[in-house]
Amino acid sequence: MNIERRTFLKSSAALLGSGMVLGSLAAPTAAAETSTAADANIWDIFRNRRSVRKFRPDAVPEADIVRILDAARTPPTSGNQQPWKFLVIRDRDKISRMKEACVQRTLERFDSRGDKATSKAQYEASVRNRLSGYFSAPVYIVVLTDNTSQYPDYNHWDGPMAAGFLMLAARALGYGTVFITDAIPDRVTKEVLRIPDRYARVCITPLGVPVEWPDSPPKRKLEEFIAYESL
Amino acid sequence: MNIERRTFLKSSAALLGSGMVLGSLAAPTAAAETSTAADANIWDIFRNRRSVRKFRPDAVPEADIVRILDAARTPPTSGNQQPWKFLVIRDRDKISRMKEACVQRTLERFDSRGDKATSKAQYEASVRNRLSGYFSAPVYIVVLTDNTSQYPDYNHWDGPMAAGFLMLAARALGYGTVFITDAIPDRVTKEVLRIPDRYARVCITPLGVPVEWPDSPPKRKLEEFIAYESL
Repeated sequence: MNIERRTFLKSSAALLGSGMVLGSLAAPTAAAETSTAADANIWDIFRNRRSVRKFRPDAVPEADIVRILDAARTPPTSGNQQPWKFLVIRDRDKISRMKEACVQRTLERFDSRGDKATSKAQYEASVRNRLSGYFSAPVYIVVLTDNTSQYPDYNHWDGPMAAGFLMLAARALGYGTVFITDAIPDRVTKEVLRIPDRYARVCITPLGVPVEWPDSPPKRKLEEFIAYESL
Repeated sequence: MNIERRTFLKSSAALLGSGMVLGSLAAPTAAAETSTAADANIWDIFRNRRSVRKFRPDAVPEADIVRILDAARTPPTSGNQQPWKFLVIRDRDKISRMKEACVQRTLERFDSRGDKATSKAQYEASVRNRLSGYFSAPVYIVVLTDNTSQYPDYNHWDGPMAAGFLMLAARALGYGTVFITDAIPDRVTKEVLRIPDRYARVCITPLGVPVEWPDSPPKRKLEEFIAYESL
């Protein structure tokens, strides 16, 4: 894994986002965007889905969660095996413990590094600040595949498609998500949520109403993705 | 890879489908379904997308291909790397050569097996019959990721999501697709289409108007996919 490059990426994201992070879940509700409204047009959804990293505390109705997961289990699946499991977490204690585990892991890395230009207290404050957005949602969904499925060697295709469908369905109902791998490490969800070895994690995503829908990051030109007849 | 089980699966599919295979592309156009109509409602699309294995020869307008691929490049992508490449094949000669390579590989397996209850000619006829549906579409799209992308270790998540989004977008315009891995092996697309080592294949899918929209195979109950708070 390209830990170095990914760590840089996350640090950049933290810098970009730090100006907006108020260290509180209560503040952002005032200036709500109207663009969170539900919209079932698939072309709008493709265009308007975003990776959301800061959420309003508003609860997500159970019916919406179920509707989103009902869509998440509709992708193509090898031999119709349907190897998915969606673990829904709303318990604030579990969410806090995941956050705390992420903080502690990051601090351990700080201890093992020589760099002491920043004090540990300052470093911890910046880490907590960065993670507060990721942990501000009312609901978390761990997208899993079952290693005991009929064709487990094909789960690596089925799994990400379910996550993608989940995120589109969430956007259709006005909710934000973000495909998290490194920011909440596999080991953290496994340990805090006691996920049995039988399951492999695809990702974890928060689910909630965004504080705002971020602009899209710059995208490559469409033509660069398409080749006709040969590469 | 569970070759044995997957081979069984494909044989079962072949048996199920064989009654409908007429060995001709011209026949099916008569009794066209009206459910192929475009529909942009995402909930309908989740519900009505199917794996399609038999196509009408009708051409797919270039604008539709581009619109589908424009949607296929919108999934979440690690660090905004966008590692995708979509190779569009319409050349009938290339499509025929892929089919022929699939036939020859299957016949090689026949030769290496002891089972001679079926004559080789009979076996070849059944193989050609089974593959004719897969190769009846006017367009094929090979979904690839670029190993030289910024975070190649994350491509295994980004790639399948693009394939899933592609298939939803195709369904929205009334086209069928099917996520093919084993039925058209990686080595066949690599050799016939001269795909450089730089690219890893996610899948290949035909793209075209279905002869019919198949019924959904039986699905597990929704409740089986969802766990609240613990597994």
